Amino acid sequence: REVVRKFRDAGIPLDAVCLDIDYMQDYEDFTVDETKFPDMKQLAEDLKAEGVHLVPIIDAGVKVQKGYSVYEEGTEHNYFCAKKDGSAYTAGVWPGRSHFPDFLNPDVRSWFGAKYGNLTSLGIEGFWNDMNEPAMFYSEESLAETFRKIKTFEGKNLDINSFFEFTSLAGSTFNRPDDYERFYDRAQMKDGSTALLRHDYVHNIYGAHMTRAAGEGLRKLSPDKRMLLYSRASCIGAHRYGGIWTGDNTSWWGHLKQEVQMMSALNMCGFLYCGADIGGFGADTSRDLVLRWTEFGVFTPLMRNHSAWNTRRQEFYQYDHIEDFRSVMNLRYALIPFIYSEFVKSALTGSMYFRPLSFDYQSDERARRVEDELLLGESLLIAPVYEQNAVGRYVYLPEDMIQVTWADGKAVQQNVVRGDHYVNVPLNAVVFFVKHGRLVPLCAPALSSDKLDTTNFTFLGDGESYDLYEDDGYTRDVKLGGNIRKLTK
Amino acid sequence: REVVRKFRDAGIPLDAVCLDIDYMQDYEDFTVDETKFPDMKQLAEDLKAEGVHLVPIIDAGVKVQKGYSVYEEGTEHNYFCAKKDGSAYTAGVWPGRSHFPDFLNPDVRSWFGAKYGNLTSLGIEGFWNDMNEPAMFYSEESLAETFRKIKTFEGKNLDINSFFEFTSLAGSTFNRPDDYERFYDRAQMKDGSTALLRHDYVHNIYGAHMTRAAGEGLRKLSPDKRMLLYSRASCIGAHRYGGIWTGDNTSWWGHLKQEVQMMSALNMCGFLYCGADIGGFGADTSRDLVLRWTEFGVFTPLMRNHSAWNTRRQEFYQYDHIEDFRSVMNLRYALIPFIYSEFVKSALTGSMYFRPLSFDYQSDERARRVEDELLLGESLLIAPVYEQNAVGRYVYLPEDMIQVTWADGKAVQQNVVRGDHYVNVPLNAVVFFVKHGRLVPLCAPALSSDKLDTTNFTFLGDGESYDLYEDDGYTRDVKLGGNIRKLTK
Repeated sequence: REVVRKFRDAGIPLDAVCLDIDYMQDYEDFTVDETKFPDMKQLAEDLKAEGVHLVPIIDAGVKVQKGYSVYEEGTEHNYFCAKKDGSAYTAGVWPGRSHFPDFLNPDVRSWFGAKYGNLTSLGIEGFWNDMNEPAMFYSEESLAETFRKIKTFEGKNLDINSFFEFTSLAGSTFNRPDDYERFYDRAQMKDGSTALLRHDYVHNIYGAHMTRAAGEGLRKLSPDKRMLLYSRASCIGAHRYGGIWTGDNTSWWGHLKQEVQMMSALNMCGFLYCGADIGGFGADTSRDLVLRWTEFGVFTPLMRNHSAWNTRRQEFYQYDHIEDFRSVMNLRYALIPFIYSEFVKSALTGSMYFRPLSFDYQSDERARRVEDELLLGESLLIAPVYEQNAVGRYVYLPEDMIQVTWADGKAVQQNVVRGDHYVNVPLNAVVFFVKHGRLVPLCAPALSSDKLDTTNFTFLGDGESYDLYEDDGYTRDVKLGGNIRKLTK
Repeated sequence: REVVRKFRDAGIPLDAVCLDIDYMQDYEDFTVDETKFPDMKQLAEDLKAEGVHLVPIIDAGVKVQKGYSVYEEGTEHNYFCAKKDGSAYTAGVWPGRSHFPDFLNPDVRSWFGAKYGNLTSLGIEGFWNDMNEPAMFYSEESLAETFRKIKTFEGKNLDINSFFEFTSLAGSTFNRPDDYERFYDRAQMKDGSTALLRHDYVHNIYGAHMTRAAGEGLRKLSPDKRMLLYSRASCIGAHRYGGIWTGDNTSWWGHLKQEVQMMSALNMCGFLYCGADIGGFGADTSRDLVLRWTEFGVFTPLMRNHSAWNTRRQEFYQYDHIEDFRSVMNLRYALIPFIYSEFVKSALTGSMYFRPLSFDYQSDERARRVEDELLLGESLLIAPVYEQNAVGRYVYLPEDMIQVTWADGKAVQQNVVRGDHYVNVPLNAVVFFVKHGRLVPLCAPALSSDKLDTTNFTFLGDGESYDLYEDDGYTRDVKLGGNIRKLTK
């Protein structure tokens, strides 16, 4: 509530608050810590009245804990990945010793997917799935081996060889290939039969099947209303169940640049719904990095600011000159009808929301080399600033375009010609480019997307009209026919 | 010998081979492993006949080893940094348990500096000092504490809190602030008295005083002939004893960019003699990174290719299309008389060899923001490519200049105007810029610098003449007067 209040006080739009693992009781999936959240249902309802949705995390690992229903049920029905001898496999994740649900098995998916109902019944409408590679801090086997090895170094003269063997031991239990060879999935095969597959052979689809469990479960729980769902691990094809975010990045300028580059790669893989932890997850961030990253995040379908618990806080309201963040977020909200429309059109026509320049300008040798600009939908080219202290950047335009400079809540347009330009981009400005002949609608910003007024638009660009896709944001019946409104200047 | 032979076979110039810690017997300073080097003196002599010098490493830490003369002498005379109770302080470095010579004390410096004679007597003329922060893998105290703590985690359910406490333990003994508080230096004060200073108060000058010990020692050992000396740790003012290299970088493109930026910072600190481990020290490098880095290294006074022992080998002759490396190295050797001249002029006039554009073009707002180009001496601007797969880069020129593109052993010149340019730089090319009105002499390349023919020059640029500083490369009497030769087209 405090976070929401501070956003509201700052006049910065907000639609969702993500809940990380601390909302759970002892890191047990599908539980709520009732000390911290004595009435989650009421909280969800109150916030929704303000246009804000809670989005809790669900981890792949189920805590080994007598009396915890998910653990007990999973054990009773043999729903967990098992060792060769059939006993459930134990690995360490957030709660310590945990089991991994066997998501490649349809019975397990049904069971786990239905568990999301524990939270949807409290009014929750969105989830993020995490740790579902599955990440493993250690296995019982690797941890025991590590302690045993550590002891052999005690009292010795640790020199160039032995010291580095010693220091590498503690970290050596993370995600070990030999640990992934120790357990098995009872996967359903194409012909409907079940086969025991060693996990390392199916590792790359495990996370996707957790998301499938959630996606299928949420469809059953809520057949008429879409739910938000995105995952850390996934695989080509799993975009039908949920999007992804780019995982635990770091508060580095280099990672901001990488995120720009990843967007078109993820779109190629079908993940149109994607985005990064704005400001960076690990390590301490800085105001300018959060601001520049937000200026890029304006254009990503998934836009969230997120960081690790032991790093400097980075909600927008933590910073001086909050009007800079407000201005950038107002651009996001002004663009939401357009962005949503471009996103749905891309999804329904099987095209990409973000594309590298090379896809549209194949015969342009210069364009083919540009990796730090993106085409967005049918009308825009974006060129985010990803270097600290920069007051601009070089931009290559593959055709004449209209440059839009958004600052202080206002857009200024100017014509620019094809070719190389050094473009001024003050720290608080967003610069992007509109193709000639296109029209981009902006609505008036609001504090949450449900309050956007889509009856009045202003326009960027010199086109004549724009075909806006619209729906209620909840329908599962997403189609272009009947949902297009032609906007004209 | 194999390395030298392969360079010679490849026709790539080479002047020096650095010897890392493995040349020593059991990592003991001033010793030579006689199994690997049965006759170091003969080897040094043979290689010198080919124009190649051996440059061995010297570490700050002295191995605790009964019978090892440096250890025995240091112990006898109390030459090592000591704990409060007066006993020598023990820390772990390459040989395992070691003591740190108390370089802030002049007696210790004289003693340690004279030890370099063990190697100069074998014909060695250059050294690099390492680990002289001093780096510390562990102290006896911190290591014991670590083992004790590790045991408390055994058998527990390691969860989010305890697991990360556990994994951070092994690495926790590196360069710990509390370890640097455990020992003392008997420093000589301004008034000549000796004071016992806790090490953490003088930590930042410790490495510089090791280099001082070496520099003063080498001057005594070789009063008429300069020796090569550079160090990892140093401090402002210590450039009078030796240069520095930028330490253990990593084979990352981002580090290549950082090295470009560091050059002007180091020059501001007086370290005109500086350079990076080309190709990157830690992690595996790639051909294109080594080549791009070498194209930058052409211009750094210290130019060496170096990597860690457990990484992919990266001598130029390891790669395909060796002619690309040969061409770039030939540019280096063609430029050596000019580079040496610009370097000495900068040193003797108290100016900087590398400067940021902002120093020379203070009223040019664009120039002041450029961090990835460097001015070199009085005539050049360099703009290295530091991005993978790039076939060029953006360059801002603060004035009209002449662009030089060096490829396949030949220079092509063209006029370019002030402003922003996207400049094509093929992977095997070096591009740099010459100011109008300046002349840059190139000699014919040779396989080592002693074989360069400086009687015939070709020229870059449109100037009328160049004042070339020359000496024999050995004299300690470096002065401009009497050593300038005017070269004209």
